[in-house]
Amino acid sequence: MSASETVEVTGHLMDSGVLSRVLDDVREYGGDWVVDKIDLGRERDDTSRAVITLTADDDESLQRLLMRLQTWGVNQVDPGEATLAEADLDGVFPDGFYSTTNLATKVRLGGRWHDVVNPEMDCGLVVEKDEAGAPTRVITLPMSDVRVGMSVVIGAAGVRVTIPVVDRDDEAFGFMESEVSSEKPQAVLVRMVADGMREAKANGQKVLWVGGPGVVHTGASQAMIAMVEAGFVDVLFAGNALATHDIESSLYGTSLGVDLSQGHGVPHGHEHHIRALNTIRKHGSIKAAVDAGVLTGGIMHALVTHDREFVLVGSVRDDGPLPDVYTDVIEGQRAMRAKLPDVGFCLMVATMLHSVATGNILPASIPLVCVDINPATVTKLADRGSSQARGIVTDVGLFLEQLAHELVPGYRRD
Amino acid sequence: MSASETVEVTGHLMDSGVLSRVLDDVREYGGDWVVDKIDLGRERDDTSRAVITLTADDDESLQRLLMRLQTWGVNQVDPGEATLAEADLDGVFPDGFYSTTNLATKVRLGGRWHDVVNPEMDCGLVVEKDEAGAPTRVITLPMSDVRVGMSVVIGAAGVRVTIPVVDRDDEAFGFMESEVSSEKPQAVLVRMVADGMREAKANGQKVLWVGGPGVVHTGASQAMIAMVEAGFVDVLFAGNALATHDIESSLYGTSLGVDLSQGHGVPHGHEHHIRALNTIRKHGSIKAAVDAGVLTGGIMHALVTHDREFVLVGSVRDDGPLPDVYTDVIEGQRAMRAKLPDVGFCLMVATMLHSVATGNILPASIPLVCVDINPATVTKLADRGSSQARGIVTDVGLFLEQLAHELVPGYRRD
Amino acid sequence: MSASETVEVTGHLMDSGVLSRVLDDVREYGGDWVVDKIDLGRERDDTSRAVITLTADDDESLQRLLMRLQTWGVNQVDPGEATLAEADLDGVFPDGFYSTTNLATKVRLGGRWHDVVNPEMDCGLVVEKDEAGAPTRVITLPMSDVRVGMSVVIGAAGVRVTIPVVDRDDEAFGFMESEVSSEKPQAVLVRMVADGMREAKANGQKVLWVGGPGVVHTGASQAMIAMVEAGFVDVLFAGNALATHDIESSLYGTSLGVDLSQGHGVPHGHEHHIRALNTIRKHGSIKAAVDAGVLTGGIMHALVTHDREFVLVGSVRDDGPLPDVYTDVIEGQRAMRAKLPDVGFCLMVATMLHSVATGNILPASIPLVCVDINPATVTKLADRGSSQARGIVTDVGLFLEQLAHELVPGYRRD
Amino acid sequence: MSASETVEVTGHLMDSGVLSRVLDDVREYGGDWVVDKIDLGRERDDTSRAVITLTADDDESLQRLLMRLQTWGVNQVDPGEATLAEADLDGVFPDGFYSTTNLATKVRLGGRWHDVVNPEMDCGLVVEKDEAGAPTRVITLPMSDVRVGMSVVIGAAGVRVTIPVVDRDDEAFGFMESEVSSEKPQAVLVRMVADGMREAKANGQKVLWVGGPGVVHTGASQAMIAMVEAGFVDVLFAGNALATHDIESSLYGTSLGVDLSQGHGVPHGHEHHIRALNTIRKHGSIKAAVDAGVLTGGIMHALVTHDREFVLVGSVRDDGPLPDVYTDVIEGQRAMRAKLPDVGFCLMVATMLHSVATGNILPASIPLVCVDINPATVTKLADRGSSQARGIVTDVGLFLEQLAHELVPGYRRD
Repeated sequence: MSASETVEVTGHLMDSGVLSRVLDDVREYGGDWVVDKIDLGRERDDTSRAVITLTADDDESLQRLLMRLQTWGVNQVDPGEATLAEADLDGVFPDGFYSTTNLATKVRLGGRWHDVVNPEMDCGLVVEKDEAGAPTRVITLPMSDVRVGMSVVIGAAGVRVTIPVVDRDDEAFGFMESEVSSEKPQAVLVRMVADGMREAKANGQKVLWVGGPGVVHTGASQAMIAMVEAGFVDVLFAGNALATHDIESSLYGTSLGVDLSQGHGVPHGHEHHIRALNTIRKHGSIKAAVDAGVLTGGIMHALVTHDREFVLVGSVRDDGPLPDVYTDVIEGQRAMRAKLPDVGFCLMVATMLHSVATGNILPASIPLVCVDINPATVTKLADRGSSQARGIVTDVGLFLEQLAHELVPGYRRD
Repeated sequence: MSASETVEVTGHLMDSGVLSRVLDDVREYGGDWVVDKIDLGRERDDTSRAVITLTADDDESLQRLLMRLQTWGVNQVDPGEATLAEADLDGVFPDGFYSTTNLATKVRLGGRWHDVVNPEMDCGLVVEKDEAGAPTRVITLPMSDVRVGMSVVIGAAGVRVTIPVVDRDDEAFGFMESEVSSEKPQAVLVRMVADGMREAKANGQKVLWVGGPGVVHTGASQAMIAMVEAGFVDVLFAGNALATHDIESSLYGTSLGVDLSQGHGVPHGHEHHIRALNTIRKHGSIKAAVDAGVLTGGIMHALVTHDREFVLVGSVRDDGPLPDVYTDVIEGQRAMRAKLPDVGFCLMVATMLHSVATGNILPASIPLVCVDINPATVTKLADRGSSQARGIVTDVGLFLEQLAHELVPGYRRD
Repeated sequence: MSASETVEVTGHLMDSGVLSRVLDDVREYGGDWVVDKIDLGRERDDTSRAVITLTADDDESLQRLLMRLQTWGVNQVDPGEATLAEADLDGVFPDGFYSTTNLATKVRLGGRWHDVVNPEMDCGLVVEKDEAGAPTRVITLPMSDVRVGMSVVIGAAGVRVTIPVVDRDDEAFGFMESEVSSEKPQAVLVRMVADGMREAKANGQKVLWVGGPGVVHTGASQAMIAMVEAGFVDVLFAGNALATHDIESSLYGTSLGVDLSQGHGVPHGHEHHIRALNTIRKHGSIKAAVDAGVLTGGIMHALVTHDREFVLVGSVRDDGPLPDVYTDVIEGQRAMRAKLPDVGFCLMVATMLHSVATGNILPASIPLVCVDINPATVTKLADRGSSQARGIVTDVGLFLEQLAHELVPGYRRD
Repeated sequence: MSASETVEVTGHLMDSGVLSRVLDDVREYGGDWVVDKIDLGRERDDTSRAVITLTADDDESLQRLLMRLQTWGVNQVDPGEATLAEADLDGVFPDGFYSTTNLATKVRLGGRWHDVVNPEMDCGLVVEKDEAGAPTRVITLPMSDVRVGMSVVIGAAGVRVTIPVVDRDDEAFGFMESEVSSEKPQAVLVRMVADGMREAKANGQKVLWVGGPGVVHTGASQAMIAMVEAGFVDVLFAGNALATHDIESSLYGTSLGVDLSQGHGVPHGHEHHIRALNTIRKHGSIKAAVDAGVLTGGIMHALVTHDREFVLVGSVRDDGPLPDVYTDVIEGQRAMRAKLPDVGFCLMVATMLHSVATGNILPASIPLVCVDINPATVTKLADRGSSQARGIVTDVGLFLEQLAHELVPGYRRD
């Protein structure tokens, strides 16, 4: 027996192409639709609103379709109350659990809307209660953190999401709206990323960087260090590789400095690399090696001496790893999540793995720019659902060099 | 005060370009050389031999250069005896430890050569001893597994490596020797990979596959299942993504089968995906879900029902993950290492992360082919030092389809 | 003083995202809009219709915006009559000339609609008249072919275009609608291209191939020859390179056959290549070399002996070139245009240059598939306005091999 | 009956890997070899010399192998005298003609060595004679320019080539020797390209640029104009696209300036583009449009007003084209060749087609750097035999921006 529900979506529907994507998803989920009403406004700046009745084969399919469409900011006209169920296994949600988006979310319980504390996609919603059993807070929880007895939202009823409002006149990010492209005036893009960072700092928010070893290989360490010193890197998410190559380059820089300063290739894998790892492991941590006067330069050194935070999460291809690296990826994700509050801007540079990982846990409301010479990295990020990601396909070394020129008065490469 | 040592290298030096690479490395390490003698043979099939005297600024630099050159099969003419030192910290090698290659290696102790049991690059060499303190075995040990009191080889003295002999008439792999290229007759390459697998099986060895989710997305599941059933997949190394997408496609295949059979895009991230993870977590393992009759098709199902082995190692971008996934990457590496004995052929398909991870731990003697539509993946693999890797830049879906035609008599896609 | 006009667009507006693109263009041209009316139908299969009033700064801007929007199938509600002007210079259109799309187009003259004979984008519309000055025919003419005295349509008035109707249930091409992707089940795509070719042949239409030298390098010659023999290649557009490499491989195949049959790389540039060119030039044409018994195999030989047509157009990087090559690119374009009547399907393989060139002159109504291992080629094609292009990112060699299996009963590679 | 010849090659044979490539080619041509003598010197800076006896199946094969090996600077120990034959057809070389390299070449006639005037690869050598029949000059001639009665060198006898001496301590270009890579410190590369250009100017030589439309799309016009004005662009080779997009952007810059200054995409194909072409065609040439005050900005305007030279050669995908464009590609090649004398440095930016075309005709002695965000472009260039090409994979916009900062004191982007 078929089930149906009426939904609405509001925004610049025509400009953003969101309506086509909604209908694509309905088709993909085997559902059908009738457009009940569409109001596009008469003027260019009016927001538009569509009301659509969806039909699916059964209620389960319908609920799943409704969750899926919330990704695009589509809500039920009559949301009703959230349904709850108790988790009866650690690390497992009850059947039919609501699967989250990364949008600002509210849950209706007992006739009242509760803001979800920390939006994150592909998680569940857990309702915390006081002793009397009244809801106190709704949080987003990843599957691996659910515990027996937790109260979990089931189905799409009683859940409402809001897409971030993009100011149409804000060229700062509108510029990159449409596509990933290497054929864009890159110098303009540099300036706009700088503006995004300055705005976050002006608001008292943190700037989050996500970086891969390409930052070191492309000779951008000096530019990045200048930005750490100038206060534009509050937190760094990375893997073992960025930190190891950075440290290797500091430790063996004197004898092998030729490489980076004259353009020779860095030796592949092997030896310096593995010896750098051993040295830091001997001291117990990167900070200990800095304190011992062993590590005296580079990006990691700058972060330590300027009291910036970093979270290094390991991967199966790591050598060593450095003692600071989380070898358990789930614990690593938890450590990353713990740094997200107050982040106001995120820049991802030269890493597919950690960019996707960060895109997975970031709320949609945080401006996010991904810079890579490989278009596939940015595309992959967008494909994973981080639709707020803006991509710049460019050379990482030159990009960071230019960014340092914009952000750090008097910056000049040696 | 400068230090020097005389080394030799043997093989088809001219053909393989190994001599240029050796001299590149000497330059990179700031050393100098004099060619004492070079014997190229007179005929094309004669092996050649060069004797070179190396000079470096001090003994430490010299030792490090000697280790580096062993990557190319360069040994000291007068190897001497291995020097040993005791580890005095868990997870840390003594200073000056010998950093391994992935070549067949011997260590000279007490006037006798000992074969190293399990060659792996970027590790150390640990000497096991009997109660009387006499060496019984030399093993390769990754840095994270070293424990206080272990006896570790220091410097390059007393260590000898052998590069695998490539039969010059063996076209089976000679073909791919030179470069990564998409402009090669791909149908020929398919046949040669099939020959490599058949040869391994004929020798009673295992075929190791390393795969990414692209195997599922490109519609190659059916071909891969046929090869599992026909016995050409003994072990699979993968991450959470391949297994999850495979399971997602099996669980939601009926309603959404349209996608894969008619070419529609797979939904990005979200929902099916996360629900598939939850379902398997509820059952406790992939095998339990198969036994419960919940998972009834797909690659993972085929591996379980045909008693093949798999090692899934997680990464920081994982959702879930599946209960079978190692979330600690160092433990995951150990699980992978445990499957390497008796592997006679390795095929890597559509994954950068797990291909590099596997390349890191494989001995150089195992034939290894890496297939990806992205040239960067194969190049990256080569850059990491897995010089035995042969790359095929091609479409993964069509490649596996063709491979199934070669290996499985009567194979026909539905 | 601002100018305005009311336009309409009909179709599956929501599904196709066409409305967003229209509004993007209005913004880009500095215009403004008011949506007067939008009717989306109530059911999924209803076509929708939007009526929009556009405003621009002056009439010239408005006319140019109207022409631009015709690319998306947008027409004036009240088209009026076409305005004509006479060309007063050879090779130059009068100011304000109507710039064409590749859609089916009609022109209103003397109260009557005339179908444009040969739609092609980025050209002008020329009205042919009888002795009495009455219009007899409207044709599309490239800029370089305009002559003094021709009667040319000015502005957007009196011109109406129709976007091809895509049958929503026609999975044959719907499949590739959305994006360029290498993560699609490629075996399915092969089958659908085969269906497209068979349908064209069944309708008595020609199949047009556009190919680059990658066809030869990837070892696909044998497959292509089989398809020529089976009648699935009526016309080939290519450059000097495909033909030269094909001929080089036939002429020097005995001594150098090793290469292609065993996977060795083709020698770069130089020597065989240049000698092959000289040999054909000596005979005066490819056909003459075939007739003389000099050229006895390969793709060009198959085309000649099976009486298929080919147009080879040169480029600035050519050696030689072959005597059959048009060295003047404008004449080459004319020769290509002359082969377009009756083409019912177009397959582009492994060439950016000739694919874009062909995309430029093809009417939108002809189904077109572009196959390349490089995503950029397909993207470039789409960027040039050939929005009907469907892209398949895959290995050309394996793709053609599979296509031959589908199209040629009993085909088996040697 | 087999034929043999003794050859020699001199240089830093080990460092440059040239010996491996020579032996690869011998294998590829089905020949065999014996190394008679190899002298590597004892010290690092000694040049080395190898003497090798080659054997082939017959004299024709041997001659062809000898020509092939000259690409690597391999000469016969006993070169003998050049053999000549008369061309008996226009545009066709006599059988067995010597196929040229792009290296400095000498031809021995009547016991005397003659320098070849203009080395270019894939051509023939023509001997010009005085009235008495004595040789006066040897020139390189492309196949299409040969005329009946010309005296052409046959086989490899009497021809000697010299590879350019690369100063081993000259880091200026040594840096890029090994590979195409995006993981190089790009800021360093910028500085070195600047040095190359300054050196050419200091020597009174011309700087040749080869550019694609990406120069305009990436917002680099302003930087390029500054370099034109500062005298670092003597000649530009390009196609219709660069010039048209540049002119389009100047002509419609006021109304559409938004695009480039704020990062919006350039409209694809169509309309502005085609109208810009028509406007210039109306004036008859770019210069005429500048003189008429119609074209008042952009790269082409800067070239015209600063009296720099440009050669625009068309391709089959061109619209228009501009009146200055050579539509016959062979004539276009001739026009390009005519600008080569006195060129001392060549920079290729963002174009595959014109880069390969220029690589084909440049002597090996001219330093050449190719900059593109697409690694395939640079690789393709190297594959064609322009082994002197150095590749930089980077963002073109940022690269030119940085280059302008290096070359033009006080340069500052608006």
